[in-house]
Amino acid sequence: MDPEAFLDIANQVVKLKMFPYFDIAHCTLCALSVREDLGSGAQAFSRKHPLACWLSYMLVVFAGGMVANGLLAEPILGPLKNSPQIVVATLVWYFVFYTPMDLGYKFAKFLPVKIIFSAMKEIYRCKKVYDGVTHAAKLYPNAYLIMVIIGTLKGNGAGFTRLMERLIRGVWTPTAMEFMQPSFYTKASLVASVIFILDKKTELISAPHALVYFGIVIFFVYFKLSSIILGIHDPFIPFENLMCALFFGGIWDSLAKIFGRGQLKEGETKDVKKNKLKCDATQEE
Amino acid sequence: MDPEAFLDIANQVVKLKMFPYFDIAHCTLCALSVREDLGSGAQAFSRKHPLACWLSYMLVVFAGGMVANGLLAEPILGPLKNSPQIVVATLVWYFVFYTPMDLGYKFAKFLPVKIIFSAMKEIYRCKKVYDGVTHAAKLYPNAYLIMVIIGTLKGNGAGFTRLMERLIRGVWTPTAMEFMQPSFYTKASLVASVIFILDKKTELISAPHALVYFGIVIFFVYFKLSSIILGIHDPFIPFENLMCALFFGGIWDSLAKIFGRGQLKEGETKDVKKNKLKCDATQEE
Amino acid sequence: MDPEAFLDIANQVVKLKMFPYFDIAHCTLCALSVREDLGSGAQAFSRKHPLACWLSYMLVVFAGGMVANGLLAEPILGPLKNSPQIVVATLVWYFVFYTPMDLGYKFAKFLPVKIIFSAMKEIYRCKKVYDGVTHAAKLYPNAYLIMVIIGTLKGNGAGFTRLMERLIRGVWTPTAMEFMQPSFYTKASLVASVIFILDKKTELISAPHALVYFGIVIFFVYFKLSSIILGIHDPFIPFENLMCALFFGGIWDSLAKIFGRGQLKEGETKDVKKNKLKCDATQEE
Repeated sequence: MDPEAFLDIANQVVKLKMFPYFDIAHCTLCALSVREDLGSGAQAFSRKHPLACWLSYMLVVFAGGMVANGLLAEPILGPLKNSPQIVVATLVWYFVFYTPMDLGYKFAKFLPVKIIFSAMKEIYRCKKVYDGVTHAAKLYPNAYLIMVIIGTLKGNGAGFTRLMERLIRGVWTPTAMEFMQPSFYTKASLVASVIFILDKKTELISAPHALVYFGIVIFFVYFKLSSIILGIHDPFIPFENLMCALFFGGIWDSLAKIFGRGQLKEGETKDVKKNKLKCDATQEE
Repeated sequence: MDPEAFLDIANQVVKLKMFPYFDIAHCTLCALSVREDLGSGAQAFSRKHPLACWLSYMLVVFAGGMVANGLLAEPILGPLKNSPQIVVATLVWYFVFYTPMDLGYKFAKFLPVKIIFSAMKEIYRCKKVYDGVTHAAKLYPNAYLIMVIIGTLKGNGAGFTRLMERLIRGVWTPTAMEFMQPSFYTKASLVASVIFILDKKTELISAPHALVYFGIVIFFVYFKLSSIILGIHDPFIPFENLMCALFFGGIWDSLAKIFGRGQLKEGETKDVKKNKLKCDATQEE
Repeated sequence: MDPEAFLDIANQVVKLKMFPYFDIAHCTLCALSVREDLGSGAQAFSRKHPLACWLSYMLVVFAGGMVANGLLAEPILGPLKNSPQIVVATLVWYFVFYTPMDLGYKFAKFLPVKIIFSAMKEIYRCKKVYDGVTHAAKLYPNAYLIMVIIGTLKGNGAGFTRLMERLIRGVWTPTAMEFMQPSFYTKASLVASVIFILDKKTELISAPHALVYFGIVIFFVYFKLSSIILGIHDPFIPFENLMCALFFGGIWDSLAKIFGRGQLKEGETKDVKKNKLKCDATQEE
């Protein structure tokens, strides 16, 4: 492919207008996720508690912005000030939950529609991560950790508000913490944040900004589509296992097991072994 | 009644000073609600955990302001900066929980006192809704949703902090979400917020502002007193049932049941029917 | 001791630089507390969920600043903007959780190390209480309650974020509220806040500021060391029992029991008695 043309496409992707088409894609997938989270009682719940249903959906749609604003002392309700966006979000919600014969839901679940919307959502996600990092960098030019946190939260806010979102619907699942088993989206947003920071703050990445951005968009869309079509869920796992083995005790625990058998009590050794196995099991899921 | 005199009264109600009498009425009812929420163990709890008791009471008293401030990136502790108000609130708390022979509690529970205090609290509530809408309108002149949310929260903040308030006392009731079964106060505050916004932002309401305000005060007080004396709890239910039937699936679900029996599987039909019944049951409670 | 020399020492303590040695002491004790809170599964957990482990540890380290910022509408992530502090905190975490053969943990648990670090942490705590009070006083010069709250939260923030910290690790213990059974640190921070406010805002304390500050440092360190070495846990309990008896129903309940036996129903009397006993039991724990 012609590099000139490629850079042109990249530049266009950077300047892509999000409203309203990408918002619609994002909202549709959020409504689907809320509906799926409700399980088989979704229809009954949406009839009995429209307010709780709508509020928890809005929390999912605007999760990233709200959480990031909350952490940066900006108005949590700020993302709701854009009235056209609210109207679009509400229409999508109504369409997915209340259309006669459940046509809206069936349309949104239709595979080609879902694939296109998912791809659009990933493009949107990339923009949100970038905006988050840029915004945090403006507030705290040297606080790399804050940039990473805000970028990640903007990228996968809904993952972190799940507890709150369910609580609005009267369901409390304290063990479903995103931090315990971060999803692929969280990890990808984290990596994207780090790359954007490297691109912005250091000289390590020599490619033009539009290319970096476009590369991340392609990465996001590619893995989303592989996840839908091929069922590959998390390409980070091998790296994580390596990291775990090298830095978070894996190798040392094994060494301790091999050489230190004498020093450790029998019970402890067994524990370490069992944990090691459990750790592997978890990460190979 | 002479319209001139009526407008005069309305103007006086608008300019009514709240501190300290209306504050005392509000605090007394808050203390009663905390005490009733504690149930039969209230006295024991207040003796064993005065700090938790006082904190959860303070959270109830200042709920609206604190939640609204939290959502608008203003200091959550802001409402506590007014020292005389704090002192009055603390004295009322002490009076209701710790007076010898429980005189304070008995006095506050005495029906005529309760009726007068309830009426005063409703006047206070109306002022808080109005202040909330005005404040949000100043910050976001075009964000109608934010105005409604802030107005509603200011009007019935305690309903939304119930989870937090109970948590301070070590009790966790995740299913008691205000969003699931909004109380009459929440709905009334919401309607009042909408009317204030219509009055402020559009030409739809031609009456003078003082009359609109006074009308809402009368509406609040009237339904509070009917609720205490006559036991009428929620005049919004017929409208809700209509809304549910028209917009949130009611009619379509029924039609689907009647015409679509062939297309739906037997189990699904039953589900829809059951849900419909459940929905009606809930709303007619 | 020569008063001149004493004042000199006091002045030096006031101006003590906290970074990095006091930060290291504070972080080490925070890491120990997280590890102990995890119980026997600490090592397994740290291997399986390094992210959740790190996040909950960071929340403990920066608890005071984050909670205080959240309540004052300042950025909750603000305390993370200081990159060197983040690096030190992360190194300490790594050292305590992941060093081969658990050397880091064993070093931190070594009694002389723990005593020195605890003393340093108390000096740090005193500084944080003072900074909190000063900061709140700058924002709200007349809101004494806010100053006390912020001072207390800065002094023992970790106590108040325990629920959240455990939630990050997927554990939910709603009954473990600091407000229900405030720890010695909370009470000591509260008393220190009040003393700092008296020193700052009134003429009641005529001693120079450095002496007041130094006195509180000594008080903190002294009781921390007695708690580690002698096992004295809470010198406030006698005062609390007195307060409870005088102001929170103790005496009146007893009087009611003695004189009012006729008026009270048998059941109620028993209740009061039982509660009184329970109250004593709790406070004598």
